[in-house]
Amino acid sequence: MEAFNLEARPRALPPGFLEALIQRFGPRCSTAQSVREQHGRGESPYAPLPPDAVVFAETVDDVTWVARHCHAHGVALIAHGAGSSLEGHLLAVEGGVSLDLTGLNKVTAVHAEDLCATVEAGVTREQLNDELRHTGLFFPIDPGANATLGGMAATRASGTNAVRYGTMRENVLALKVVLADGRVIRTAGRARKSSAGYDLTHLFIGSEGTLGIIVEVTLRLYPRPQALSVAVCNFPDLEAAVDSVVEIIQTSIPVARVEFMDVQAVRATNRYSHLELRETPLLLFEFHGSPAGVREQVEAVQRIVAEHGALDFQWAEQAQERERLWAARHKAYFAALQLRPGCRATSTDVCVPISRLAECVRETARDLDGASFPYTMLGHVGDGNFHVVMMLDAAGGKEWIEAEALNRRMVERAIAMDGTCTGEHGVGVHKQAFMRAEHGEAVLEVMQALKAALDPRNILNPGKVLPPQRGPM
Amino acid sequence: MEAFNLEARPRALPPGFLEALIQRFGPRCSTAQSVREQHGRGESPYAPLPPDAVVFAETVDDVTWVARHCHAHGVALIAHGAGSSLEGHLLAVEGGVSLDLTGLNKVTAVHAEDLCATVEAGVTREQLNDELRHTGLFFPIDPGANATLGGMAATRASGTNAVRYGTMRENVLALKVVLADGRVIRTAGRARKSSAGYDLTHLFIGSEGTLGIIVEVTLRLYPRPQALSVAVCNFPDLEAAVDSVVEIIQTSIPVARVEFMDVQAVRATNRYSHLELRETPLLLFEFHGSPAGVREQVEAVQRIVAEHGALDFQWAEQAQERERLWAARHKAYFAALQLRPGCRATSTDVCVPISRLAECVRETARDLDGASFPYTMLGHVGDGNFHVVMMLDAAGGKEWIEAEALNRRMVERAIAMDGTCTGEHGVGVHKQAFMRAEHGEAVLEVMQALKAALDPRNILNPGKVLPPQRGPM
Repeated sequence: MEAFNLEARPRALPPGFLEALIQRFGPRCSTAQSVREQHGRGESPYAPLPPDAVVFAETVDDVTWVARHCHAHGVALIAHGAGSSLEGHLLAVEGGVSLDLTGLNKVTAVHAEDLCATVEAGVTREQLNDELRHTGLFFPIDPGANATLGGMAATRASGTNAVRYGTMRENVLALKVVLADGRVIRTAGRARKSSAGYDLTHLFIGSEGTLGIIVEVTLRLYPRPQALSVAVCNFPDLEAAVDSVVEIIQTSIPVARVEFMDVQAVRATNRYSHLELRETPLLLFEFHGSPAGVREQVEAVQRIVAEHGALDFQWAEQAQERERLWAARHKAYFAALQLRPGCRATSTDVCVPISRLAECVRETARDLDGASFPYTMLGHVGDGNFHVVMMLDAAGGKEWIEAEALNRRMVERAIAMDGTCTGEHGVGVHKQAFMRAEHGEAVLEVMQALKAALDPRNILNPGKVLPPQRGPM
Repeated sequence: MEAFNLEARPRALPPGFLEALIQRFGPRCSTAQSVREQHGRGESPYAPLPPDAVVFAETVDDVTWVARHCHAHGVALIAHGAGSSLEGHLLAVEGGVSLDLTGLNKVTAVHAEDLCATVEAGVTREQLNDELRHTGLFFPIDPGANATLGGMAATRASGTNAVRYGTMRENVLALKVVLADGRVIRTAGRARKSSAGYDLTHLFIGSEGTLGIIVEVTLRLYPRPQALSVAVCNFPDLEAAVDSVVEIIQTSIPVARVEFMDVQAVRATNRYSHLELRETPLLLFEFHGSPAGVREQVEAVQRIVAEHGALDFQWAEQAQERERLWAARHKAYFAALQLRPGCRATSTDVCVPISRLAECVRETARDLDGASFPYTMLGHVGDGNFHVVMMLDAAGGKEWIEAEALNRRMVERAIAMDGTCTGEHGVGVHKQAFMRAEHGEAVLEVMQALKAALDPRNILNPGKVLPPQRGPM
């Protein structure tokens, strides 16, 4: 059983529509229930809403063919990457075709001398970094899941490294996009800057497949740091940890990562990943730079955390130990699940200006203290972004209502602080209800106008990002 | 006399239109010829195309009132900042109202703890930095001219610091925009990242007043560097200088500035600014960081330039000497004018991937060697961006035809290298002819669709950015 059920509003498929797909794609078009259900869910707490068919694309031509076919017949078309999205982005609310892009999996070009690479949309970040291994370069954005780079662009993903390297917003130079009617565009060249017209690259980043289908991504790369250090720092309480981060950011120390975990998250991680971290609120740091640069950053950070009453500052000296720590951090979600065996978890995702972070975290923790279920709090606090993972009754029911109310208060708190309802997970269906409060009616009208301009038949991932328009009363 | 004349296509003003403006704005609405001519030109080589009236706005309400009035009557509306644009952005091609925003000149808020500030569109970058003096923070983007921050956002400006700090694209967090019909939107909150819907901020950055009128800008700020060094490095030839820059960028040394000047530019600068720079191709560097970090950068750069045969590496030890050097660099355009007294100058502006920079500069220099007029070459080469300033017969005529042909070849060369027809000056009217070659027809169709969605009556800076649509044959 799933926690949330969303009402499907399937469109009728015109006669012969599926047959034409099957004729074109043969076994690469599936209508098997298991395949459809798997493609109609993602990692959200919603019951799957399966598409009518799944097509496994392998080329841009495949994508343009499907877009033209869906466009001609007014059938919904949902781009699908690794399926790791969290807010219901992949539910086939209006039925139609889920277009699996994981077969577009070639690294098209590595321009090491220009610090960039072009990849097909289905290439995952781990695959790219594997292929870059011998170049001395890497792609830093790391949302935890081994997502596809097309999907990461489509949701404006970020993660643990964003505090230093930015998000997908800052790291995509250009996109190749298939438009609703099958036309193919390239949004920009490879120059580091340009003032030649409207910024189409950023228009598609974060559009969640509702304005076009990203089929190729040109990404910035970075030299692997000469020196890299990892440290764990324990604090007597949550406030001391968060206040330290705020001061580190305000001082512009270029930490590569600074992750917060509350006591519950540390406890869960110790159990799940067989670590022996001291069970207090902690910060997990990574520093990149030259040997002298890293030393300088570490000294500055040590000074700041000491002033905030840090209990200790422990180095992960060995590469193996560092990797274990980060692997454990990435498994924090699964670790949290084990705090309540058999539960189902849901994660919040707000982001506020750094000056409001301590207040936002404190008020959220106070609100959560009354919850009738276990939770962990963790986040990319260097960006002002944090998550609460709530471990809920897998059978649904009143805990989910309580969790939704907590989520709503958390989002409203963030918006009141000039923050956002989603720092990195995206809107999907789950955050639509907050779009009006965050942006106001006129912004939604502009977004609707852009949607209508680029997808006049509303075939691209319909029912996502934008809340239903207000009708006349 | 001006070098280029563009044909005006004035729209007829409906009866009572001007009278209503004058009634609302009194002396803040001018129809004096000198005021209109001054607002219908900018720094481009085009003959002025004056608007029918100039309104001096002081509040957002003024802007919304004018937008509503123009929208209701289908009259063109051109936002005007410092008037320093170079490509004909401000010509009133279809007449109408030039809306002078320099009266929106308040720094609305400095959020030092969040490293950002919100300013009205008419605040200039120098004014902002003056007001930040006591905060320890600064805003780095520096296009040379003391442009308004609204205008800089509208043209996606950059300049000498972009190699380290990025362009306006990377440094605007949010905008307040008045839409064509007078609705006001705020494109984002102040969180460092968000995945909450379409990226409207970047849609308006670089849209040159054709999609909306920027009335407020929220900008990233940076701590003033603890240490700052400036050095001049001479080279035996252009290739050695450019190859050094390419290697510095490929090694990701975080230089704050690296500016190239060819022999003619150095000679002109010596004369104009009374300096005694060695008259060879040179690079002008600035380094920001901690004292140790700056030392490290300098050592790495010295190693690289030595390998490329640099003739010397001279420090500007005193703050005064540093300021004199940068002031001289910023005056390079005016210095160039003096190479041919009484001439009129025009500047090109291309940007290519860094791996193609040496080739692009070399081929451009070879092409220019045959020119019948003097020129200087200089640029923000760390971004792959460079300019040629051509000193032409002020009376117009065949030198201008020759210069346009050189410019065309330079742009075509840059586009063939996956670069752009404008790195930072924008499209205006002058670069429209290259938009099709750079982007292709489908991209232009998308841009046209966005324009139609946001400005259905085509009142906002009409005739700019997008070339005329291809009619049926």
